[in-house]
Amino acid sequence: MIERLAVIGVGLIGGSLARALREAHAVGEIVGIDRDEENLRRGVELGVLDRYVVDPREGVQGADVVFVSTPVCSIPTVVAEIAPVLKPGTIVTDGGSVKEFVVAACENLMPEGVHFVGGHPISGTEHSGVQASFATLYQGKRSIVTPTEKTDPAALEKVVEMWRRAGCRVPLMDPVQHDRMLAAISHLPHMVAYSLVNAVDGYDRFGGDLLAFTAGGFRDFTRIASSDPVMWRDIALTNREAILETMDFFAGYLAKLRSLVEAGDAQALEAFFLNSKQKRDAIL
Amino acid sequence: MIERLAVIGVGLIGGSLARALREAHAVGEIVGIDRDEENLRRGVELGVLDRYVVDPREGVQGADVVFVSTPVCSIPTVVAEIAPVLKPGTIVTDGGSVKEFVVAACENLMPEGVHFVGGHPISGTEHSGVQASFATLYQGKRSIVTPTEKTDPAALEKVVEMWRRAGCRVPLMDPVQHDRMLAAISHLPHMVAYSLVNAVDGYDRFGGDLLAFTAGGFRDFTRIASSDPVMWRDIALTNREAILETMDFFAGYLAKLRSLVEAGDAQALEAFFLNSKQKRDAIL
Ligand SMILES: NC(=O)c1ccc[n+]([C@@H]2O[C@H](COP(=O)([O-])OP(=O)(O)OC[C@H]3O[C@@H](n4cnc5c(N)ncnc54)[C@H](OP(=O)(O)O)[C@@H]3O)[C@@H](O)[C@H]2O)c1
Ligand SMILES: NC(=O)c1ccc[n+]([C@@H]2O[C@H](COP(=O)([O-])OP(=O)(O)OC[C@H]3O[C@@H](n4cnc5c(N)ncnc54)[C@H](OP(=O)(O)O)[C@@H]3O)[C@@H](O)[C@H]2O)c1
Repeated sequence: MIERLAVIGVGLIGGSLARALREAHAVGEIVGIDRDEENLRRGVELGVLDRYVVDPREGVQGADVVFVSTPVCSIPTVVAEIAPVLKPGTIVTDGGSVKEFVVAACENLMPEGVHFVGGHPISGTEHSGVQASFATLYQGKRSIVTPTEKTDPAALEKVVEMWRRAGCRVPLMDPVQHDRMLAAISHLPHMVAYSLVNAVDGYDRFGGDLLAFTAGGFRDFTRIASSDPVMWRDIALTNREAILETMDFFAGYLAKLRSLVEAGDAQALEAFFLNSKQKRDAIL
Repeated sequence: MIERLAVIGVGLIGGSLARALREAHAVGEIVGIDRDEENLRRGVELGVLDRYVVDPREGVQGADVVFVSTPVCSIPTVVAEIAPVLKPGTIVTDGGSVKEFVVAACENLMPEGVHFVGGHPISGTEHSGVQASFATLYQGKRSIVTPTEKTDPAALEKVVEMWRRAGCRVPLMDPVQHDRMLAAISHLPHMVAYSLVNAVDGYDRFGGDLLAFTAGGFRDFTRIASSDPVMWRDIALTNREAILETMDFFAGYLAKLRSLVEAGDAQALEAFFLNSKQKRDAIL
């Protein structure tokens, strides 16, 4: 049970956690903090927040858990701002999509007796803001928690429990391993989707408006290319090495397929497509 | 009104056209032809077909419209087989995803008084077979019809009318232009999706099963990578030049994004993602 939860950055991720914990009766009071006051007002109206405070240092007073869910690059900045006023026993955790950058910085910012634990729910949508949040976002999903050798066991236990109450399975993972895995299964697909929409948009062979001709397949395929540009800018900036590695790995497969198309190799083309279909069907 | 429609290759595309025309009372009798007799039996059971005939030459007897919806490479073969027995006035049309290859070959196969018109409904799913067909597949979608200078105007009019009755808007397009446009909006995305799933599947940095960790975003993004390997083999074989061109065009955008990630160029990354988001949101 969390007595008072402070959420900094009350958007899709922070708002959905607040809603989920409230519905699970796993939290007493929920205080919202955000640089966008309009967003906070909406959060109170929607019943996501009990109250809000614009100043982070004031907002975190008396919170036993502080959840930071702003874009990745700003998480250490936000944590640095609140750290000096946190009372011993407070737990600070986050929902940022990149973990090594966040965890390394935030662990070093904690005053005596205050503990940081990194986390990342593997669930989201392409929409942003508190109005996009919903209580079941995390239901049946995974939320990865990334302890290090510095992590306090009791704080870890409390963060794991928080995500369980929100509906998640909670695997533990090293921050570096997390970042490499997410590069492959999430960051790479986003880089590919963004590149694809830009390429089709830039393909001016006909002068006409190609995108207007696209059907359902294209729309579904490119849904993730509608994700928030600031969020993804920060991910690209902070998980650079792993993203470059997966992009190069993918480019190798694309080049391989290109050579099969060029050669008109019917058997190898069918095998390439079949392997993809079988692997994709197996995760349904 | 079509008196007797013969459908050769009674799968998702042919079965859905049969169902749609039946519901619109736009067809008298529907005869199914397929190399898979089990499939034909199922088509009769499901009410998609009135009856079936295994031998194509026998099956097309008395049909005023023959619709061929087998994989692209086999369309000219199938048409060559039936052409000699077709009576003057018969119209042969198809639903294949590549048009220059099909139209050029089939036009030349027509006996005196029999007319070929190429077509391609821009609507589908990743599922195959008559059991996957449904009457509303084409509702509100486009079906592109691709006449050439050789096309008979009355035959063209009848094929356009057929797709309208099935629920489609029917733009006319040159076969070559069709193939280049579809390369960009459909064939390229499929090549990218197949490459992505194979790449993630092949990325063995952790030994673990990466695909098991994927969430909804990845599953939606890669849905088209579950499409039929034979259908896509044939598309890759018959629209080779245009697919290679779009793959190279896309690879340029991917390389551009890679260089922004490598440089850590925050502004340019955000602009790249924002352009994609704006263009994608505009087609919703
Ligand atoms: N969306 C997903 O699918 C997903 C999934 C898993 C994890 N995540 C991670 O979760 C975090 C939040 O993502 P989200 O989708 O919830 O974003 P969001 O809906 O845009 O919410 C973020 C909120 O934080 C506010 N904010 C930004 N910078 C701030 C700062 N320096 N101080 C205080 N508030 C600030 C934003 O205000 P403004 O509107 O004024 O910027 C916004 O209200 C990110 O780190 C992201 O990587 C996202
Ligand atoms: N699926 C889409 O999204 C989509 C969209 C637009 C256009 N198209 C085009 O529509 C056509 C059919 O696609 P579909 O998705 O309907 O495929 P499908 O569901 O697999 O149906 C094709 C049917 O044709 C049969 N067949 C294959 N070769 C044959 C031959 N030589 N003679 C007689 N029957 C044969 C198949 O039998 P077997 O099962 O024994 O192979 C199957 O029953 C393709 O040209 C495709 O490019 C597809």
